[in-house]
Amino acid sequence: MIILGIDPGLAIVGYGFIELIGNKYRVLDYGAILTDSKMEFPMRLEKIYRDLNRLIEKYKPDDVAFEELFFNKNVKTAITVSHARGVEVLCAKINNKELFEYTPLQIKQAVVGYGRAEKRQVQEMVKIILNLKEIPKPDDVADALAVAITHGSSIKFKEQFRMK
Amino acid sequence: MIILGIDPGLAIVGYGFIELIGNKYRVLDYGAILTDSKMEFPMRLEKIYRDLNRLIEKYKPDDVAFEELFFNKNVKTAITVSHARGVEVLCAKINNKELFEYTPLQIKQAVVGYGRAEKRQVQEMVKIILNLKEIPKPDDVADALAVAITHGSSIKFKEQFRMK
Repeated sequence: MIILGIDPGLAIVGYGFIELIGNKYRVLDYGAILTDSKMEFPMRLEKIYRDLNRLIEKYKPDDVAFEELFFNKNVKTAITVSHARGVEVLCAKINNKELFEYTPLQIKQAVVGYGRAEKRQVQEMVKIILNLKEIPKPDDVADALAVAITHGSSIKFKEQFRMK
Repeated sequence: MIILGIDPGLAIVGYGFIELIGNKYRVLDYGAILTDSKMEFPMRLEKIYRDLNRLIEKYKPDDVAFEELFFNKNVKTAITVSHARGVEVLCAKINNKELFEYTPLQIKQAVVGYGRAEKRQVQEMVKIILNLKEIPKPDDVADALAVAITHGSSIKFKEQFRMK
């Protein structure tokens, strides 16, 4: 079972592909799709779509997990990022993937064990769980891996109770 | 010169195709792409993308004009609609169209002549300018035609000053 985790964004789209084998994870790839703010907005959306499409075709994930957007202020940022997230959701859907989304709270609970964990703690746990040498940079990449792990945990949890 | 006007949305995406011939407009088609709120969100985005793609392939517009989003409250609605608008912008861009956007103020100024016009006045003018028997329904369709007319006006205006 291959999982793609996405930390949605416009300037930086964090992504992480991990494979869930039994109870363990294997890291396939992670990184970020970057779009320059000097590019025209429609072109930035197109770049995200094409780059993400290429990655999905390469790693053929079964499921795609997104971090849920939450904004309590700055509507302008919410609008801009949501345009990009719409394109990212479309890209996964059009490739016939199963889509899931998790709140920051759910991600912290799944990765660290409690919902009030600091960003740094989440990143440390991502490094440990995936057996990485360093915390992936920028933060968006670690966040993408965190949401992928969250989806992996929810699958493992479900499997425990499957009738055999 | 064929113009596609789009009133962006998730449940209702208004569209209008008009052809600018000299100083006049010919209406090619107008309507709305509808997505049911009972559908899963990614599927709604996919339906919008596929339906809009089909329309663009059919009418081959030169330019696509969008109404600009503006929200001063309700971030949740802004986020949802922006996901859909992102998909709509992507669809136009990926079809190699020139994209433009106009604020509600610019649309009112172009269609009615002053920026504080009422919605109803805009709709009446759309009907008159395009020589339609009735005001197109729902409002989103009239709004889409209004933004198409706005783009048409800006082209006509530019043409007046072209050196011959």
